[in-house]
Amino acid sequence: MVKTMKWQSSALILLDQTKLPINVEFIECKDYKRVIDAIKRLEVRGAPAIGAAAGFAMVLALKEIISEENLLASYAVRRDEIIAARPTAVNLEWAANLLYTSVEEMLEAKLDSVLILANIEKLALKIYDTDIEKNKTMGTFGAEIMPEKAIVLTHCNAGALATCGYGTALGVIRAAYEVGKLKMVYSDETRPLLQGSRLTAWELLEDGIPVTTITDNMAAWTILKKGINAIVVGADRIASNGDTANKIGTYGLAVLAKEHNIPFYIAAPASTFDFDIATGDEIKIEERSGDEVRMFQGIPSAPPNVAVFNPGFDVTPGDLITGIITEYGVLEKPYISAIAKLKENVSKENLFTWKA
Amino acid sequence: MVKTMKWQSSALILLDQTKLPINVEFIECKDYKRVIDAIKRLEVRGAPAIGAAAGFAMVLALKEIISEENLLASYAVRRDEIIAARPTAVNLEWAANLLYTSVEEMLEAKLDSVLILANIEKLALKIYDTDIEKNKTMGTFGAEIMPEKAIVLTHCNAGALATCGYGTALGVIRAAYEVGKLKMVYSDETRPLLQGSRLTAWELLEDGIPVTTITDNMAAWTILKKGINAIVVGADRIASNGDTANKIGTYGLAVLAKEHNIPFYIAAPASTFDFDIATGDEIKIEERSGDEVRMFQGIPSAPPNVAVFNPGFDVTPGDLITGIITEYGVLEKPYISAIAKLKENVSKENLFTWKA
Repeated sequence: MVKTMKWQSSALILLDQTKLPINVEFIECKDYKRVIDAIKRLEVRGAPAIGAAAGFAMVLALKEIISEENLLASYAVRRDEIIAARPTAVNLEWAANLLYTSVEEMLEAKLDSVLILANIEKLALKIYDTDIEKNKTMGTFGAEIMPEKAIVLTHCNAGALATCGYGTALGVIRAAYEVGKLKMVYSDETRPLLQGSRLTAWELLEDGIPVTTITDNMAAWTILKKGINAIVVGADRIASNGDTANKIGTYGLAVLAKEHNIPFYIAAPASTFDFDIATGDEIKIEERSGDEVRMFQGIPSAPPNVAVFNPGFDVTPGDLITGIITEYGVLEKPYISAIAKLKENVSKENLFTWKA
Repeated sequence: MVKTMKWQSSALILLDQTKLPINVEFIECKDYKRVIDAIKRLEVRGAPAIGAAAGFAMVLALKEIISEENLLASYAVRRDEIIAARPTAVNLEWAANLLYTSVEEMLEAKLDSVLILANIEKLALKIYDTDIEKNKTMGTFGAEIMPEKAIVLTHCNAGALATCGYGTALGVIRAAYEVGKLKMVYSDETRPLLQGSRLTAWELLEDGIPVTTITDNMAAWTILKKGINAIVVGADRIASNGDTANKIGTYGLAVLAKEHNIPFYIAAPASTFDFDIATGDEIKIEERSGDEVRMFQGIPSAPPNVAVFNPGFDVTPGDLITGIITEYGVLEKPYISAIAKLKENVSKENLFTWKA
């Protein structure tokens, strides 16, 4: 299976996703700043994957400053730099805050620096290791609710490449394929950065799963003409009422699902939920450089002086979402109570503690 | 103003639209086969423009065979070749059939070949000349129904470049701009061939009309966030009930307009109507090469072996269309009666006859 990242204690090795599908190249990140650059350049992308990468960045950052007197103040600066790498996905913030708070607690508990470092590295690896496990659980729940002879439309890449392995939306698709329920995946190419055609098509082909690529504007016609019977996508941040930020284009697909009376599912682990915000209005949407739209791999596709609007994400209202597939089961409306219950389950489990 | 084509009696000069916006180059078509190639390669595109180009191709074809004994049989073969260049737009077929039928009538009326050739050239020029005139009339009708401070979304290129000048959808936009009603045009880039970002953005910038480019999947979010208050697009073929074939992606935009309660307009001259078909189900949709989707400006953007679905057009049901702007006024529902009346007006006018 595709490996998005590999931890080597002194460095984080990342598969360079900007080079796919033509070249399979790796980046060696020996310090946290290189990880930040990789997140900014989308060399690593996908909410769960950048969450795990942020965890390893926090380990690399801690190593540099472990002997400093004002360790916690320095660590807070680095944590904020890491969080600022990309604003929309919650997993990044979640992982960075988790490791920071753990260091804070261990300092209060007077642990020595060798033990603090060891525990933090263990926690970062725990984030990484549990991700694949959670994705497989999500896949099982998701496959159950897929239609027989599923013809699924997906957007962007919520696959093995967006996670530590198996994928969220593509995890559901993989699981449906494994139980013989999947007929075809239609993959939106997902402009401007083409994660659908470059990454989703590539990783499904690698696994022998039937996939057809379309441009984003073909989605509506493909639903009609190819009998798509479910849409499944990932998420970058989910509010307490089910409003979901995901790759730009997701909201339009949810409108199409409603018009054509087909189910629209989000697949995302509990770490994607932002229990601190009431609705999607509070989600900050990243606006990216206009050159991403004006060019492709350095070749102009528009006049160089044309104005561009380039939001990286949009927010789909919970109302338009049929169900949210998590590792704790499939959440259904009303989302306010379903997500409150999820929050309880997560805090009860308390999976990510240095005391473990 | 941008000139799409120029007739020089012995040749048709075409602006090579595949080279825009980077290079402004021209193609000299000395025979009808070169015109067919230009239509196939999209060097000239847009339903009204390929209608006019087909007219000139019919002139070039007639010149070659004017002394042949079986003139009409030879001409029918060439007419069919020209019609086969692209199947979806009706204007191509309409122009080719008009000139063929005119030759047939003149032969019956025993006109000599010099006169037949002269009349056919005059008719082809008439198609070309009246197109700009019709577009300006459409623009006036369209500008009247645009909202004050119009923020208009358009798709593909239904502009000066798609016609002999001024444009259909962009004609409406130009006219709204001229009367001070236009605030901003959002232009979908329109994958796979990027007519929106390459052509629409370019020609609006040339005229100083405010334009912002977005990728196709940003349409829904842009409607919400930028306050789009009208969608205006062109058409390739309109059935007797208002069902409209246009560039792939149009149908999805019509669904978005419905969801957001904003008007969705088609702008198209009477020659775009196919009075012979009852509904859009009878419209043949061109499927184009998968490589258009697998590549972006010649650079691979997907695995070379991935399956692709690449329909060039889709059909928007008349139900989703707020109004159809023509040179005879704005048609409204029910379209069956409005289009029947349009047919009457067109046949009364009988603009395109060699007897004129």
